[in-house]
Amino acid sequence: MSIEFKVEAHSGAARAGRLLTPHGEIETPVFMPVGTAATVKAVPQDILEELGVQILLGNTYHLYLRPGVETVRTFGGLHGFMAWPRAILTDSGGFQVFSLNDLRKVTEEGVTFRSHLDGSLHFFSPENAMAAQIGLGADIVMAFDECTEYPADRTRTQASMELTLRWAARSKKYFEEQKEQVPWKEYPVPSTQCPEKGAANTHETASAGNWVLGTGYCTQSLFGIVQGGMDLALRKESAERTIEIGFPGYAIGGLSVGEPRERTREVVEATLEHLPKDKPRYLMGVGTPEEIAEYARLGVDMMDCVLPTRAARHGLLFTSEGKISIKQARHAQDAGPLDPNCLCRVCQRYSRAYLRHLYASNEVLAQVLNTLHNLSFYLDTMRRVRHSIRLGE
Amino acid sequence: MSIEFKVEAHSGAARAGRLLTPHGEIETPVFMPVGTAATVKAVPQDILEELGVQILLGNTYHLYLRPGVETVRTFGGLHGFMAWPRAILTDSGGFQVFSLNDLRKVTEEGVTFRSHLDGSLHFFSPENAMAAQIGLGADIVMAFDECTEYPADRTRTQASMELTLRWAARSKKYFEEQKEQVPWKEYPVPSTQCPEKGAANTHETASAGNWVLGTGYCTQSLFGIVQGGMDLALRKESAERTIEIGFPGYAIGGLSVGEPRERTREVVEATLEHLPKDKPRYLMGVGTPEEIAEYARLGVDMMDCVLPTRAARHGLLFTSEGKISIKQARHAQDAGPLDPNCLCRVCQRYSRAYLRHLYASNEVLAQVLNTLHNLSFYLDTMRRVRHSIRLGE
Repeated sequence: MSIEFKVEAHSGAARAGRLLTPHGEIETPVFMPVGTAATVKAVPQDILEELGVQILLGNTYHLYLRPGVETVRTFGGLHGFMAWPRAILTDSGGFQVFSLNDLRKVTEEGVTFRSHLDGSLHFFSPENAMAAQIGLGADIVMAFDECTEYPADRTRTQASMELTLRWAARSKKYFEEQKEQVPWKEYPVPSTQCPEKGAANTHETASAGNWVLGTGYCTQSLFGIVQGGMDLALRKESAERTIEIGFPGYAIGGLSVGEPRERTREVVEATLEHLPKDKPRYLMGVGTPEEIAEYARLGVDMMDCVLPTRAARHGLLFTSEGKISIKQARHAQDAGPLDPNCLCRVCQRYSRAYLRHLYASNEVLAQVLNTLHNLSFYLDTMRRVRHSIRLGE
Repeated sequence: MSIEFKVEAHSGAARAGRLLTPHGEIETPVFMPVGTAATVKAVPQDILEELGVQILLGNTYHLYLRPGVETVRTFGGLHGFMAWPRAILTDSGGFQVFSLNDLRKVTEEGVTFRSHLDGSLHFFSPENAMAAQIGLGADIVMAFDECTEYPADRTRTQASMELTLRWAARSKKYFEEQKEQVPWKEYPVPSTQCPEKGAANTHETASAGNWVLGTGYCTQSLFGIVQGGMDLALRKESAERTIEIGFPGYAIGGLSVGEPRERTREVVEATLEHLPKDKPRYLMGVGTPEEIAEYARLGVDMMDCVLPTRAARHGLLFTSEGKISIKQARHAQDAGPLDPNCLCRVCQRYSRAYLRHLYASNEVLAQVLNTLHNLSFYLDTMRRVRHSIRLGE
């Protein structure tokens, strides 16, 4: 057994629960900060821990190119390499190479693409995307999929969905055959909760009641990805046939690719209906603070997005009173905190005027503090959502 | 009384002591990190506190240009603006405009210079450099001086020294007349140890024994600066005539301007002989870890330098085993800490391989972690020096 998921409270379609991974417990619904290149840009790992980050996301495409899977593997995987003892999820690289546009070519076998760093040629198949993710050693890894472009007609969307289904089966086959190669066992990772291979591995965490890991030592978990574009019938078919292949968790992919926001919501809601209630449901690549709260209400358990961290680096800050562009001159004399309702260390210590000065002066500290606040705001948003669900609101 | 200095131990020419300022106590000899634009680049203020930074340096030239003195003043000075409750020293702007080269013109009255930001014309005289520093509200401010270029012949060096002496007298006159304008009194600053104006102001700090501030409320302190180029006789004359003007502390300026390192040491040693033993002695703009330890041994009490922070941003890291260029490929697989003898949070958590990856990937976290380590190394160096002096070693 590699993960265990328990839904503990419902409120309408929303659910609050816990996901136990080899690297700690995650309270769901959860927002996962993006740590593209083995770093959540500008934030030291100990501050991420203080913020209460329980799981973060790494990008296989970026890590495969730099520092390379073999380097990460020799450190016991990403946990050891980036000194992050808590849970990690890696994407499959499918969405990243999809974003390369002109630099890629898709065949039945896989995707040939050029590195954005040096133009060198590379090839990802379901098998070697799995191999890469096993080497990176995240707790949760993703099947290699094709992210259908938007817009796409029904014929194209169906063909793309079928390809993703064939790749999902190949991903699972390779993963099941190779998952023992996870690099944790040879390199101890701080705070890992994973019992030794072959050891009597009863596992309990105080906060979770009576969690007991099953037989077998901890390995990674492979999630399937539902595609099907904006076509609700294809989404249903994709969900059903992905479930047939069988995964311990399911993601909704292929959204936030340019479609209107109301369409995203419609597809998410329709797809969720067809996903098992006892498995974690992961909506990839969304969204604003309002959206992540809304998707949690629809029954999504996991989300990730570059928005809080990327926006922070551009001076766009999320607050309880709406979005703020800290670069604006109107903040230059403002002695008030960024968000009077926020308890993060940025809002507790610094003024808007100071944050504006740092941004206007192109100071690195602007990126550090802005990112810290936005992440804190996202994590607090999800904390409130979980609390509301448990209260039945 | 605005500062109080107590020498508590000697070892040869070296001395260990305490400097009490309106914003806390400083153990000397002390290294002051440079926070040019109201930020020690890449490091949040709470981490500076954790590192044990007791005083940092701000650059008047940069702060005058951006965000401007009036903005800082309305926040109760730099302490309020940058949310830094401990001591601050500002330079006078003299050295910074000296560094502008083609963009400046020196007359008896002062220096006309062009902003490096937008080319706009500005003028610093002793009077308005003092006005700027009073508005910025550092605990210790510096007389406006001319930093003599290197090399310079005796005639030029003497003329420059005479100008600095006239400017020192003008700086002191303006400061004494205007020092009540310090912006602290209207804007409470966190953790200030400064009693209210007119209040009974007995002040004690546990660690310092029986410190008692004198009558009168806290103001800033103005330090004089000794010039005289590389000419030891002129250095002696500059020291004696600066002491005649009278300041609560004395700096040695005009060094690290291109002269050989052994010359710097020679001038420092010769100048120190002529400075009062009961006043803090500040050597401006030095140096490497070995140099700051050496200058402390010669009897210097305060030093500042951009080296640890600037070198960090270029991947040059100081360790107990020498200087390391973290960008080198030989660190790419190195699982060891940056410095096995360092207890900083970087060395305790991350590998050289990870730091090398961050640097090679141009990640902001590289700047954060590298700066954190280098500052920690400098502060630890001075801690060891103070300890050695107190042990009489």
